[in-house]
This record gives sequence, C-alpha cells and structure tokens, in this order.
Amino acid sequence: MGDLAQAVEMRPIGFVRSPYRDKAEIPKGPGAEHRAEGALELRPELEAGLQDIEGFSHLFVLWVFDRSLGYELVPTVPLDAEAPHGVFASRSPRRPNPIGLSVVELLGRDGPRLLVRGVDMLDGTPILDIKPYLSSVPAEKLRRGWVAEAEARRKEKG
Amino acid sequence: MGDLAQAVEMRPIGFVRSPYRDKAEIPKGPGAEHRAEGALELRPELEAGLQDIEGFSHLFVLWVFDRSLGYELVPTVPLDAEAPHGVFASRSPRRPNPIGLSVVELLGRDGPRLLVRGVDMLDGTPILDIKPYLSSVPAEKLRRGWVAEAEARRKEKG
Repeated sequence: MGDLAQAVEMRPIGFVRSPYRDKAEIPKGPGAEHRAEGALELRPELEAGLQDIEGFSHLFVLWVFDRSLGYELVPTVPLDAEAPHGVFASRSPRRPNPIGLSVVELLGRDGPRLLVRGVDMLDGTPILDIKPYLSSVPAEKLRRGWVAEAEARRKEKG
Repeated sequence: MGDLAQAVEMRPIGFVRSPYRDKAEIPKGPGAEHRAEGALELRPELEAGLQDIEGFSHLFVLWVFDRSLGYELVPTVPLDAEAPHGVFASRSPRRPNPIGLSVVELLGRDGPRLLVRGVDMLDGTPILDIKPYLSSVPAEKLRRGWVAEAEARRKEKG
C-alpha cells in the first residue's frame, strides 16, 4: 500500500476556450445537452503530443475545477433536489481532487489548438490531459442508479 | 487565460488492489482484454462519498501512473511498432501529467472498498477520483484513427 499523504503535483497542459464565463450559463441537471463549441489550447511546446489526433472523433478531456473551493462528501446536485448522493456517485465539482472529465467531439485542429464540440467547462479552465476515446460500454449493459431514477421521476412530473 | 505555471496538488483518495505486481503482467496492445478483478480501497474517512454508488454498473477511475518517470511527446506504443503517435492521441503512461483513466465494472461494495472487474492498474496504484459512468458515445459515431488502422493491419497479418 502506498503512502496516503503522498502528494502529486500537476501542471496545466493548456486551457479551455469556451463560450461560458459563468457557471450559471452551463446547462446542468436533467436533459442537459452539451453542444457548445470551443477550443482546447495547448502550450505550444506540447504541440507534438497531438500528432495523429485528427483521426479520432471523440476525446476525453481531464481538467481542473479551478473555481470550486473545498469538497463535500454527500452533496445535493442539480439533477436531484430530493436527496443528496455521494460525491463519487455524482459529477459534483466539489471533489477531494477537483478533476473534471468531459467527452468532446473533435471538429478540427489548428496547430496546438483543437476545435471541439460539447464543452461544459468555463472559459479559461486548466486542462490536465487529453486522451483518445477508444470504446464505449454498450447501452444495454449500463445501469445508471439514482441518475436514472431522478430522470424518471422528473418525466412523470412532466 | 490562466497562469500556465499554476500547479495543482492532488492527494490519493485511496489505492487499487490488483493481481498485477509488474507492468509486464498487464494485457496491453492489440486485443487486450481487461477482465481482472480487483478492489478500489478508499481512505476510511471518505467512505460517505460512496453513498448510492451501488446503483451504477460502471465507473470511471482516475489514477496516477506512479511508476512512470517523465514524459515523451511522441512515444512508440505496444499497439503499433511501426510508427510513433502523439502522447495525447495514445494511452502511453509517460504523459505530462501522469493520470490514468480506466472504466471498470462495479461488482459490489464492502464499506470503503469497491469490488470491480476490469482493472488494468498495478497493485498499490494511487486513486485520484471515482465518477459514475453515465453515457456512451454510440459505436457508429466513433472514429478510432491510428488505433483502428493498427488493429486492421495486425488482423491482415494474421
């Protein structure tokens, strides 16, 4: 077992360009759709790391919730006002390590700048990593716990 | 634009228990399948953060490549010996920020310990975050660039 106090230091590889300047503008909760276009701007000295990325339709982006403070283990989130859920069973921004994960569609590349669709981050958000999206869990194998229940309740209410 | 030198400090929320003690034991490259069972052991004080996680069939695990040193922008990876590819277009462990991302199937929970299938991490790997897997990109919308090409070449060769 490793050292629990062991800290790992990360530095941004670049920043997100997004139409969202304020959290309130980002679609959240039931039925939220992320179609916004934006860019992932890498540090110019890392551009070589993007070689052959154009061949992938979708990317994982790992980024920092840099405008969230502290964490809450059992937060109440926009999708379900009725009950709180564990932070690791939610996408709450107030996490022990404030890392966000988004799937975006790659539209094009201009040097160290990737044009993407599906940003749900604020403008200026620090990016930690980009990875190719290689495979999906088939929809019929997926169980979505309290999220599916909260969505069903909302539909019933109309 | 944020400060490019800005560092973010992360601390493990727990550790992976895996049958793999050595990188050579982990299935990699073409046709690699991850069916190994293991556990995600959280720090006991974070257990409340797992509330309601049992309802999800699959989880994202963000973890640290703690036994990789430095990074390579255009590495050669096991799947394709013929040509190197950009680190952000690959799953190479030698990344500017050494974060790994895995999708695991949740089999059960015992307090702060999640039993999972599909570990591709070494025993003792530090975990940074756990998130519910909520939706997939449909297979027909996915393009897999050089990875699909390398797989096809290998099939032709038999």
